Amino acid sequence: MPELTAGLRADLARLVGADALLTDPADCWPYGYDNSRRQALPQAVVFARDVTQLQALVQFCVRYGVPLIARGLGTGTTGATVPESGGIVLSFERMDQILAITPGDRLARVQPGVTNARLQQAVAEAGFFWAPDPTSAAVCTIGGNLAYNSAGPRAVKYGTPRDNTLGLSAISGAGDWFQTGVLTTKGVVGYDLTRLLIGSEGTLALITEATLKLTPLPEAKRTLRATYADIHAAARAVSAIMAQPVTPCALEIMDSTALEMVSRYAGLDVPAGAGAVLMIEVDGPAACIQDAQRAVGAAAQVAGLLELRLAETAAEVAALWKTRKALSPALRHVAPKKINEDVVVPVSRMGELIEALEQLARDSGIRIVNFGHAGNGNIHVNLLIDPDDPDAVTRAATCLEAVFTLVLRLGGTLSGEHGVGVAKRAFVGRELDPVAVRLMHAIKAQFDPAGILNPGKALPDVLS
Amino acid sequence: MPELTAGLRADLARLVGADALLTDPADCWPYGYDNSRRQALPQAVVFARDVTQLQALVQFCVRYGVPLIARGLGTGTTGATVPESGGIVLSFERMDQILAITPGDRLARVQPGVTNARLQQAVAEAGFFWAPDPTSAAVCTIGGNLAYNSAGPRAVKYGTPRDNTLGLSAISGAGDWFQTGVLTTKGVVGYDLTRLLIGSEGTLALITEATLKLTPLPEAKRTLRATYADIHAAARAVSAIMAQPVTPCALEIMDSTALEMVSRYAGLDVPAGAGAVLMIEVDGPAACIQDAQRAVGAAAQVAGLLELRLAETAAEVAALWKTRKALSPALRHVAPKKINEDVVVPVSRMGELIEALEQLARDSGIRIVNFGHAGNGNIHVNLLIDPDDPDAVTRAATCLEAVFTLVLRLGGTLSGEHGVGVAKRAFVGRELDPVAVRLMHAIKAQFDPAGILNPGKALPDVLS
Repeated sequence: MPELTAGLRADLARLVGADALLTDPADCWPYGYDNSRRQALPQAVVFARDVTQLQALVQFCVRYGVPLIARGLGTGTTGATVPESGGIVLSFERMDQILAITPGDRLARVQPGVTNARLQQAVAEAGFFWAPDPTSAAVCTIGGNLAYNSAGPRAVKYGTPRDNTLGLSAISGAGDWFQTGVLTTKGVVGYDLTRLLIGSEGTLALITEATLKLTPLPEAKRTLRATYADIHAAARAVSAIMAQPVTPCALEIMDSTALEMVSRYAGLDVPAGAGAVLMIEVDGPAACIQDAQRAVGAAAQVAGLLELRLAETAAEVAALWKTRKALSPALRHVAPKKINEDVVVPVSRMGELIEALEQLARDSGIRIVNFGHAGNGNIHVNLLIDPDDPDAVTRAATCLEAVFTLVLRLGGTLSGEHGVGVAKRAFVGRELDPVAVRLMHAIKAQFDPAGILNPGKALPDVLS
Repeated sequence: MPELTAGLRADLARLVGADALLTDPADCWPYGYDNSRRQALPQAVVFARDVTQLQALVQFCVRYGVPLIARGLGTGTTGATVPESGGIVLSFERMDQILAITPGDRLARVQPGVTNARLQQAVAEAGFFWAPDPTSAAVCTIGGNLAYNSAGPRAVKYGTPRDNTLGLSAISGAGDWFQTGVLTTKGVVGYDLTRLLIGSEGTLALITEATLKLTPLPEAKRTLRATYADIHAAARAVSAIMAQPVTPCALEIMDSTALEMVSRYAGLDVPAGAGAVLMIEVDGPAACIQDAQRAVGAAAQVAGLLELRLAETAAEVAALWKTRKALSPALRHVAPKKINEDVVVPVSRMGELIEALEQLARDSGIRIVNFGHAGNGNIHVNLLIDPDDPDAVTRAATCLEAVFTLVLRLGGTLSGEHGVGVAKRAFVGRELDPVAVRLMHAIKAQFDPAGILNPGKALPDVLS
């Protein structure tokens, strides 16, 4: 990585606009981290403005061999936007316009820097929502959601960004601007570059605009909470719920360690002997919502159910969510620097996964808290360690290794919605087919021949 | 294309198995056509059996520069499986096993040669369906559905193959077997090769296995038929239906020319002055179905509505569908060799599209019948001509050119679910971004370096 000399900095200022450039390390530092606790100093930060400016920037980076790392608002958890090999961090925070909302065609056109929450608010006024709703919706951008295919709890019914994006505009690593996809929900002209870019973590192209598929807001929503004696009963209930026709719009699980955490720090209102809790929500037309709630409630009644509570009023809903909402502060209190993974296994293997994780916790002496999006089999595995304790870090590394081995043995995937970034690069070669990895690298070389777009991220090395 | 000498034929027989090889032109001929009325004689036909055999076949084709054209059961409409540059047609009809159905994980694993209808029947026994349901379901294969991303009427609610496929196994044009995707509904490790292969018409790889996402069968279905004074009223109703929360599982349109065809050959039971008909179906839990029907019925009541009929019994449903079902035989009677396009426009532009098509029909003297999947804006435009009349063919070519220009001006796409094949190759360069086309060719070169997989199909030439 070449030094950014005073001469090059002046060139850059001329190309991208002086008001769109930071080069003072003190200014650049806040753009060098994400939520993975990794941090590296960018050589410069550029604020994306428009296609012309971005093309000039890409050409500059190609000429001088400077890495270019696209960044939303830094809520990623895998270091994907951390400039570990140096380079320019490209912040999309100023390209934050909602360009069009077209209710009759169920679509919105947006720039990548708009936050998920602001988009939801704007389309809600027209009676719609965009299905992906990561927990960080208030502060994460659509560009970031597309980069990691981040979905959140609603995905169980409404899908991920790949299922809810119709087309993109982007700039390749050669500086070429191009469009992908269609304005319609059907279309099969040319290869599907839209979904190829989604989930590619800024390694193939810089997304400058997205056409998003909107879904009409449901009229009504109902909440249920089911408490089980053990995780296997809860897992059986998840399978039963997913095998009947009413698909819930949220199906979240908490394991016994999670319940124990909450009980210690916030007081628990679940029955004694609780080994797992499911939070379930259904949505739909107001006239049908009670029947939907009843159908899902019936499916939740498997052997091992200790209590099933149905909420109707806002106060009852809040009471049911209290345990789940208390979990995050409790975790922060005990282990502010916990390791949070987002593995996925087929729904039918979830009980097996969590039981093995509990065994792993006993063997390793590391407390592991599991919760997450059970309807997709997407479990957030939290290792409660102090990363400043070298011994704990070593044990955690061994433990994580075992978690990943377990997930792959169960037919799962190492990331549901957080992506690979730097954090999981060393592991994903064990999941991906080696021929497929070679093809991915070959594709990368076509989109980014100079290798400037987020180098060293997302893809594992090619195995010989 | 080299000649397949007796020596090469003997090599081939040894590699793929003599019982899996046809070389007599009389035997090969039936494998040289599809439903586009194009036909060309394959130099040989091979019946796919397993990965080992297919790898040997690919290596043979690479060594001797022989095109290899994957084929399901020949129901395609664009000539994508017609060996126009010679080569070996690879029929998947014997790789037709349903390998696994896993209700708890909502998935099925299948070989590409199984027909859509047989899969639907098998998964229905477990309480599920696979969303894509092309009209040719009885005789089209899953491999073909994946090759063209073919969906059918249900896509308006349940999506296309790209939305309903979790992973694939495939063999590249270099003879490498690889796996893509996951067994779960979330996953973001590596680039999305699954959806890249779907819709690529056998030009990137040979699909040997697919993991399909299943959806629970709805308990109940209801049918509505809405008749409008003109196409604009019907188009407004489609927009209104798509803007409210109950998404129908079918939303089909017929224009005035379609109604006129039916009235002449089968007798029409719609009110006088009918200019367009919508066939609407809703599905869902039995307890909610009446409300769903009512909600959609209310949305269908826009100015220009002449009649709204709701069916409850099977006999009433059949009566409502009578007009729509009479259309295909009526068309076959009038113009057995009609040209059938499957363009798509944003739902809000559908009225404009059909009005302009009516004007085009008047100007060109060609009768144009429009019907199709209105909820996706996917209109089947039928030019009723006799392709054996040279003058008609010339006028039809001019007319088609105008149809495609119109569709692109309205923000649409030239194919919703039939694909490009040979038939639309000359046109899709006008829709696709030229940089994207260059990238698609670059991707093709990575998957198929020798250029043996279905050469000359799907992608337009690179524009200089």
